Amino acid sequence: MERIVYLNGNYLRDSEAKLPIFDRGLLFADAVYEGFGILDGKIVDFIYHMQRIERSLGELSIPMTFSFDGMFHSLMDLIKRNGLQSGFLYLHVTRGVGDRAFHYHDQFSPNIFAFTQGEKFPADDMPSSVELLTYPDLRWARRDIKSTNLLAQVMAKQAANQHGAYEALMVDANGFVTEAGSSSFFFIKDGVLFVRPVSNDILHGITRQTMLRVAKESGISLVERAYSLDEALAADEALITASSIYVLPVGKIDDNIIGDGKVGEFTLSLREGYLAKARAEFYVPKVS
Amino acid sequence: MERIVYLNGNYLRDSEAKLPIFDRGLLFADAVYEGFGILDGKIVDFIYHMQRIERSLGELSIPMTFSFDGMFHSLMDLIKRNGLQSGFLYLHVTRGVGDRAFHYHDQFSPNIFAFTQGEKFPADDMPSSVELLTYPDLRWARRDIKSTNLLAQVMAKQAANQHGAYEALMVDANGFVTEAGSSSFFFIKDGVLFVRPVSNDILHGITRQTMLRVAKESGISLVERAYSLDEALAADEALITASSIYVLPVGKIDDNIIGDGKVGEFTLSLREGYLAKARAEFYVPKVS
Repeated sequence: MERIVYLNGNYLRDSEAKLPIFDRGLLFADAVYEGFGILDGKIVDFIYHMQRIERSLGELSIPMTFSFDGMFHSLMDLIKRNGLQSGFLYLHVTRGVGDRAFHYHDQFSPNIFAFTQGEKFPADDMPSSVELLTYPDLRWARRDIKSTNLLAQVMAKQAANQHGAYEALMVDANGFVTEAGSSSFFFIKDGVLFVRPVSNDILHGITRQTMLRVAKESGISLVERAYSLDEALAADEALITASSIYVLPVGKIDDNIIGDGKVGEFTLSLREGYLAKARAEFYVPKVS
Repeated sequence: MERIVYLNGNYLRDSEAKLPIFDRGLLFADAVYEGFGILDGKIVDFIYHMQRIERSLGELSIPMTFSFDGMFHSLMDLIKRNGLQSGFLYLHVTRGVGDRAFHYHDQFSPNIFAFTQGEKFPADDMPSSVELLTYPDLRWARRDIKSTNLLAQVMAKQAANQHGAYEALMVDANGFVTEAGSSSFFFIKDGVLFVRPVSNDILHGITRQTMLRVAKESGISLVERAYSLDEALAADEALITASSIYVLPVGKIDDNIIGDGKVGEFTLSLREGYLAKARAEFYVPKVS
């Protein structure tokens, strides 16, 4: 189906949106991105995603050439042009175009594009539990930067897909779980929610962060520490979060059933709480 | 200056060569590349680079949609169209275009482009020694795949450039030297050439490999093992190799002068030997 996409201030048919082969996003993966949920025709967790892309850009010294509100209006315009009530919204910023040299200078002009995709799991449907496949975490040391250096995740998620699993669970060389291929991972044991603390070893998930606020507000006990795969396998419930899926229950990891393999009550409550919080916090720009 | 570039079988002006924003090279750095030296209007180490890109593509299950000889003729055509006698040749293969999903299928059609750039150091001029800046090696665990996941190298080489150094020397968390930002690193101590063995921790450098053949043939003693930065700093001579620079002497690493800081005799002999070998081994296709 043909879409309208956003490219540097213009709205184009998807087949017409192109970037030069000399864009550093292609040559060096010198680019960052964000993915947002679209719910009720609105953008979920907008401000938090924008704060994260501002940080990613800053870590790479890519100039941020848009304001939060300016981008909000552009993205809402894109959603409306595609008539989308629910789905996924993708925003990508490259450093720009130049002769091939690893180092850069201040004169690059970022290329910015955005597009929408359909939803994978309708927000208000009862979720089914998904399966994960463990895979070595091959990523670089700056996983806190949401860059397009994603080949390690492509390999992990391809392996999962080939094994009929929905998502990969990445495990480091010491046997510790870092996170899932493109989502944050959590587990619940004896009523306690276990979560790996943010560091350069994981992406600072936005859905993760909002769901943790929900968990804290609803009085769920939280343990923030690194944990082994074995601990995760012994969980009562496990779940993943991402902007494209919100909160999903995990029923199986490799050949191990988690809990009774069904959707757990904590997970369901966190999903409902997350969606309610997201809807209560839709961004209102200063000038509409 | 305007160039003619190659894109999927066509020769275009550089400003006209574009790829869709949905190319997986942009979205996921799901792409591999090669860089070749151009010497006397010919392609240096052609077969070895092609064998490496064939391996990189294979590791990622990207189909190789060209033959060595077919690509040889396309690239030689590109060099001639640009009237280039010496310089740098870049070849890039992405998995292709599709809706954004990490996993892939067999139906992607690779996008292939190539371009030339001018030379940095004329091959037959006496080389000047360059400076390196040490930088943490932040890269992922599959450095043997020559993919476009290059942001760690961009950061390293940007730091070097900002400090007035030509290149970065990447050091792992244990204090061992892996390699330079976009070149292989070697040092000479008491007449022995020290080189880190190939593994997934470094790129299998083509210029490195040909230069090592030259070293062996000229009877230079070789020690292949991992070594610490301190060992490298105590060297009599140090050098880097890459297809864009051939063999260059290293005079300084951070604030440490290497040897007497001048171009060493081993380095000079390896550079001359490498260039002679490259010229003796220009590829001759089966059908011209």
